[in-house]
Amino acid sequence: MAHGVAHQLIASHLVDGEMTPGQEISLRIDQTLTQDATGTLVMQELESLDLDRARTEVSVQYVDHNLLQADEKNAEDHAYLRSACRRFGLWYSKAGNGVSHPTHMQRFGKPGKTMIGSDSHTPACGSLGMLAIGVGGLEVALAITGEPLSIKMPEIWGVELTGELPPWCSAKDVILEMLRRHGTKGGTNRIIEYHGPGLATLTAMDRHVIANMGAELGATTTVFPADEEVRRFLAGEGREEDYTELVAEEGTEYDVTEAIDLSQIEPLIAKPSSPANVVPVSEVVGTPVGQVVIGSSANPGLRDFAIAAHIVDGRQTHHGVSFDVNPTSRPILADLTRWGGTTSLIAAGARIHQSGCMGCIGMGQAPAPGTNSLRTFPRNFPGRSGGGPDDQVWLCSPETAAASALRGEITDPRVLAEELDLKWGDLGLPEPTVIPGMLEEPPPAEEARHEELVKGPNISGLPEFDPFPDSFEVPVLLAVGDDISTDDISPAGAEALPYRSNIPALARFAFTRIDPDYPQNAEEIKDSTGHAIVGGANYGQGSSREHAAICPRYLGLRVVIAESFARIHWQNLANFGILALEFTDAGDREKISQGATLSFSGLHEQLQNGTEVTAQVDGQDITLRHSLSDRQVRMVLDGGLIRQLAEQKG
Amino acid sequence: MAHGVAHQLIASHLVDGEMTPGQEISLRIDQTLTQDATGTLVMQELESLDLDRARTEVSVQYVDHNLLQADEKNAEDHAYLRSACRRFGLWYSKAGNGVSHPTHMQRFGKPGKTMIGSDSHTPACGSLGMLAIGVGGLEVALAITGEPLSIKMPEIWGVELTGELPPWCSAKDVILEMLRRHGTKGGTNRIIEYHGPGLATLTAMDRHVIANMGAELGATTTVFPADEEVRRFLAGEGREEDYTELVAEEGTEYDVTEAIDLSQIEPLIAKPSSPANVVPVSEVVGTPVGQVVIGSSANPGLRDFAIAAHIVDGRQTHHGVSFDVNPTSRPILADLTRWGGTTSLIAAGARIHQSGCMGCIGMGQAPAPGTNSLRTFPRNFPGRSGGGPDDQVWLCSPETAAASALRGEITDPRVLAEELDLKWGDLGLPEPTVIPGMLEEPPPAEEARHEELVKGPNISGLPEFDPFPDSFEVPVLLAVGDDISTDDISPAGAEALPYRSNIPALARFAFTRIDPDYPQNAEEIKDSTGHAIVGGANYGQGSSREHAAICPRYLGLRVVIAESFARIHWQNLANFGILALEFTDAGDREKISQGATLSFSGLHEQLQNGTEVTAQVDGQDITLRHSLSDRQVRMVLDGGLIRQLAEQKG
Repeated sequence: MAHGVAHQLIASHLVDGEMTPGQEISLRIDQTLTQDATGTLVMQELESLDLDRARTEVSVQYVDHNLLQADEKNAEDHAYLRSACRRFGLWYSKAGNGVSHPTHMQRFGKPGKTMIGSDSHTPACGSLGMLAIGVGGLEVALAITGEPLSIKMPEIWGVELTGELPPWCSAKDVILEMLRRHGTKGGTNRIIEYHGPGLATLTAMDRHVIANMGAELGATTTVFPADEEVRRFLAGEGREEDYTELVAEEGTEYDVTEAIDLSQIEPLIAKPSSPANVVPVSEVVGTPVGQVVIGSSANPGLRDFAIAAHIVDGRQTHHGVSFDVNPTSRPILADLTRWGGTTSLIAAGARIHQSGCMGCIGMGQAPAPGTNSLRTFPRNFPGRSGGGPDDQVWLCSPETAAASALRGEITDPRVLAEELDLKWGDLGLPEPTVIPGMLEEPPPAEEARHEELVKGPNISGLPEFDPFPDSFEVPVLLAVGDDISTDDISPAGAEALPYRSNIPALARFAFTRIDPDYPQNAEEIKDSTGHAIVGGANYGQGSSREHAAICPRYLGLRVVIAESFARIHWQNLANFGILALEFTDAGDREKISQGATLSFSGLHEQLQNGTEVTAQVDGQDITLRHSLSDRQVRMVLDGGLIRQLAEQKG
Repeated sequence: MAHGVAHQLIASHLVDGEMTPGQEISLRIDQTLTQDATGTLVMQELESLDLDRARTEVSVQYVDHNLLQADEKNAEDHAYLRSACRRFGLWYSKAGNGVSHPTHMQRFGKPGKTMIGSDSHTPACGSLGMLAIGVGGLEVALAITGEPLSIKMPEIWGVELTGELPPWCSAKDVILEMLRRHGTKGGTNRIIEYHGPGLATLTAMDRHVIANMGAELGATTTVFPADEEVRRFLAGEGREEDYTELVAEEGTEYDVTEAIDLSQIEPLIAKPSSPANVVPVSEVVGTPVGQVVIGSSANPGLRDFAIAAHIVDGRQTHHGVSFDVNPTSRPILADLTRWGGTTSLIAAGARIHQSGCMGCIGMGQAPAPGTNSLRTFPRNFPGRSGGGPDDQVWLCSPETAAASALRGEITDPRVLAEELDLKWGDLGLPEPTVIPGMLEEPPPAEEARHEELVKGPNISGLPEFDPFPDSFEVPVLLAVGDDISTDDISPAGAEALPYRSNIPALARFAFTRIDPDYPQNAEEIKDSTGHAIVGGANYGQGSSREHAAICPRYLGLRVVIAESFARIHWQNLANFGILALEFTDAGDREKISQGATLSFSGLHEQLQNGTEVTAQVDGQDITLRHSLSDRQVRMVLDGGLIRQLAEQKG
C-alpha cells in the first residue's frame, strides 16, 4: 500500500501502538519548541523531573509572547528562561528575535523530523515535511527528557490542490476557505495532508500560513511534502544539507479526501468573533476600520510584509486608522528593510513594533470599543484582543489588510489594485538574511551543570496535587456553552500573561471573562469538596496553554463533563489529574445546571474496567463516558503525571 | 543695556508685568503642544471653556505616551483626541508618528516664538531660539483660547560654552555635567541661556538634548540662540523660510553666570535613582547590565541612533542584555533605515520598538528586579521604569549605552573604541526625510463646527470643585520627604496611564507608591473634612501632569505645606484650588507629623492681605507663607480656575 507524507513520518518514529485511527500510538520526538508564556512552566517541570541535559536533537526556547514588560515580571521570566536553557542544554532565543514558528522553521526545521511544541501553532513547521504537533507543556518537558509522545492515531485528510491563486489572493485565503467549508471542529482527530499539482505554486512560507492555521480547524497537525520548494527554502537559509525529499507515494489513499481549485479562490475574511465565520471580502466592503495589523505566525513571511508595503508605497494610510506592523523576526525585518519595504511602511504611517506575537496574543494593540480591527492573525476569539468582550476583530490576508488601511474601510484588494493600477507579480525580494549569533547555543554539559537558575519572586514553583478520590460529591460551579476556548479558561493578554510563571496568582484570572466570581467561589471549597464544570462541544479549543488545566485544578476542579473536547486541552486535563467525561446522551446536558450536585462512587473501578461512568445528578443517575487510554487513566488516578513520575521514582 | 535671547523673547511677548525676577508677568503664547497623557484633560477643559476654535498660531496634539494598548482605553483616548483636534482646530499626530518634542521641533519649531506645552520637556524647542515652557494642562487650554500665560519672571542664567567635545562624548554628557554641578534644584526660577563659541560645535538636535533635560535642573526653560546651526536645521526640514536670526546682543549681562569648557567633558552617567546622581563612567565600569535602551526626547536625533548603530555594527550584543531601541519618530526611523543603521541595529540584536516615549514614561520595557538598566532617557526616579521601587536605572549617552550593550557591563565608550578600533567623526548621515501627510491638519472652521466628539466610557468628564473655605480643620494624611515627584503623586506606567482621561479611576493610584492606603483614607473623609499633606523641598518635581493636582483634589486635598515647590506643580495646585504654603521656619516641619490636625481660620482675609498665614497644629500656632499672586489667590478661593471662569461667564 502507498503511503502519504504523514504516514511515513509516523511510521519512521513509531515506538509503540498501531497506526489505526483512534488507537493510542507513541512517537519518538526529535525536536521541541517552547515559547515564554508556556515555557516557564516547562522549565519548572524539567526541574521537577530532575533533568540533567536535554535528550532531543534540538530543543529551543523562544521569547515572543511576554514582550511588553509593563512591570518587572516579564523581564524576570526572560532571565529565568535563559538560565534554564543554559542549565538544561536548550537553545535560547531572546526577546525581540521573533515569533517561534517561522524562526524555528528558518533555523531548525528539517524534513522527516518530528517536533512537539507547547504552542497550538506548532504545526506550522509541517510546511517543511515535518510532523509538528502542539501539545501541553508537560508533554514537551517529557519529550525533552527523551520520553516518546503518546497520542491517538488520527485520520489522514488528503486535500488536493489544483490550479493557481488569482492576483491579490494568497495563502491566507486558502486556509480561510478551509475554515469556511469545515468550521473550527472540521479537523478534529485528523492530520491534514496537502498534495497535488497546485502545491508547486505555493512557497514554503505560504505553506506555513496554511499549516499554522490548521490549528483553527482543530486538526492534530498539517503536513506538506518536502519537495523542490522546501529545498529552495532551506538553500536560502544556508541549510540545503538539511534537505531530504519526503513526498506521498504514487497512489496514496487518504482516510478522508477533499479538493481545492486554487484558481477559484477569492479574497476572504473571517468576521468577528470566530476564525470560521468566513465570508468573501466583497460582501463586507465599506465597513469602517479603525485598526489594521499585519504580522503574526499566520502571515509571517517576507512577502506578506512586502505585499503590504507595495500596496501602501507612496501613499498615506487613513488618519483614523492605527496601522500596526509586527515584524515576524529580526532576519525578516532586516530583509524587508534591505528591500525597502520598511521605509514604504513607515512613510505610509505604520507603527513598526518589535518582532514578536504582540496583539496576536493580546499583548497590546487592543482596539477601541466599537472599532473594527482587521488583522492577519490566526484567531479572533471574543476578547482575545484585549479590547473587551465585544471587540470586533476580523481575520484576513495582508493584501486585504493593507488595502483597507489606505481606505479606512474594508476594501477588496482586487478593486483597489485596479483603481490604483498596482502591479501584481514578482516583488523582487532579496535572498534571506541569516544572523548566525541570533540564538544562544547552550554551553557544553560540563559547564551547564554549574549554571544557576535565576529565579525572581514571580517564579512560584509548581503546585502539588493529590491523587484522585474514588467516591466524592462536588457542586457544578460553572455550566458553560459550546466552543469555550483556553482564552476563556485562562485569559492571555497584558494583564494576566505576566503571571504565567505563578499559578496561585494566575488562577485569580481563571474563567473571569465568563464568571468574575469563579476563582473566589472555587477557592472557598477547594480543600473541602472541590468542584465540577459542565461544557458543550469543542471544550478547550485554541491555545495549547496547560495553565487552562493547572489553574482550575489548583482551584479544586475534579471533573469536566462536556459534549466534546479539543485535543490538546483534553490531554492537559489528564496530565494534571482532572477527569474529562463526555455525555452519552446529549439530552443529559440540560439536566446539569450551575449549582447542581454531582456524585460519583467507585470511580476507580469504573475507569479501569471500561469507558462508561455513572454519576448522580441531584440524586438521578446519568451515564457518561471517557476516552482515556489505560495510561491516562492511571495518570488521572495518581493525581497527574508529575506526581505519578515522582511516585514511580519513589 | 544689551539683551540676551531669553530677554528678547520675553520682551517681544510681554502683555503685562515687569521683567523683574520674581514679579508676575504675562506672555502672549504663539504655539502649544499637548501629548496624549495630559491632552485628554486639556481637550475636556476646552469643552468646559466652550472654545469654538483655537486662537494660537499653531496647536498640536501628539499621541506618544499611551501606546501599548493593553486594553481598549488607550485606543479610545486616541479616537477622542483626534475628534477633539478636528473639532477645535488643532493638528493631530497619530500614534506611532513619534515623540512630541523632536517632532514639533522638526515640523513647527520657529525662532522667536513662544510655546507652552503640557509636558515638562517642552523646553526642548528652546534649541531653536524659542521660549518653550512646560506648564499644566489647564494653562495650555487657556492659551489655546487666546489667553496669555502668567508666570514669575525668572532669573536668566548665562552658561558660556567654549572648546569642543572630545571623541565619544556628546550633548548628553554636557547636560549630565550641569546636573553633576547643580543638582535637581539648581535651575529653579531660572531660564538657562547657553552662549559662547562652543555653541558652533553643537547641532540644533544636540542643543535639543541639553534644552530637554534642563527640566531635570528644575529650570523654567532653556534657550539657545537662533544662529547658523538653526538655519541649517530648518533648511534640512524644508523650512528655511521660518528662520530668523535671534542671538544675544553684544555685551549681554546675565543674572547668574557659568562656564563649561566642552573639551574637558568626559563620558558621564547618572546612577540610580536621580538624574543628578552623576559620576564619570570610568568610575563604574564593569557593573553588570541587563538592559540598554536607546531613544526618548533626551536623545532623539538621527545621530544618537546612528552612533549606537555604528558602535554595534557587525557585532552581536550580549545575550543577557535586552537591547531596546525606541525610534523617536517616523521620519527619523526612515532616515536611520535609509542610512543603514536600522539594519545594523537589528543584526546586532536590537528590539526595534514603535516610535514614541515607551519605557521613558514607564510604558513597558520594565527591567527585571536587581538588573541594571542603562538608558539614554532624561529621568530615573525610583519606580518610574515600572520595575518596582528598587529599580536600578542609569542615564547616559548613546555612546556609553551602545558600548555597554555589547559588553554586558558598563563600558567606557572611549576604551571600547580603542579596543575595537572604531572610527569617530562624520557619520555621513543623510538629509532629513519630511513626510508631508504625517500630521493631520484640522478641517476649516465651518466644517470643524460639525465634528462630533468621540467619547467612549473611559472619558469621564472633569470633576467639579467647590470654593475654598474660610475656616476649617483637616488631618494631615501624609507627611513625605524631599524631592517628591509627580510620579510619586500620580504614577505613570502601564497600569495607571490608561486612566488619564478618568479622574475618579486614576485617583485610586494617587500616592500609592508611598502609602497604598492613601486613596481610601482620603476618600473616606473627602466630603466631611478633606485633608492636608506635608512635604519637604522641591515638592512636585518632574513631569508636568496636572493629574498630580486634580487627583488629590478630587480626594479632598485642601492644603499642601512644604519647604519648597517645583514650579509647574505649584501652578497646577493653584489652578485646581489647592493652597500651597511654605514653612517660614524649617524647624516647624518636624512639628507636623502624619495624623496631626491643622486648623485655619479667617484664611480668605489672610491670603488677600499678605503673604503670611497662621495655622494651628494640634492647637499650637505656626506661621506659614504663600507666594501666590493676587490673581492666583482669587483663583484658589474661587475653587480653581475652571470654576472661576465659569462664574465670571455667569
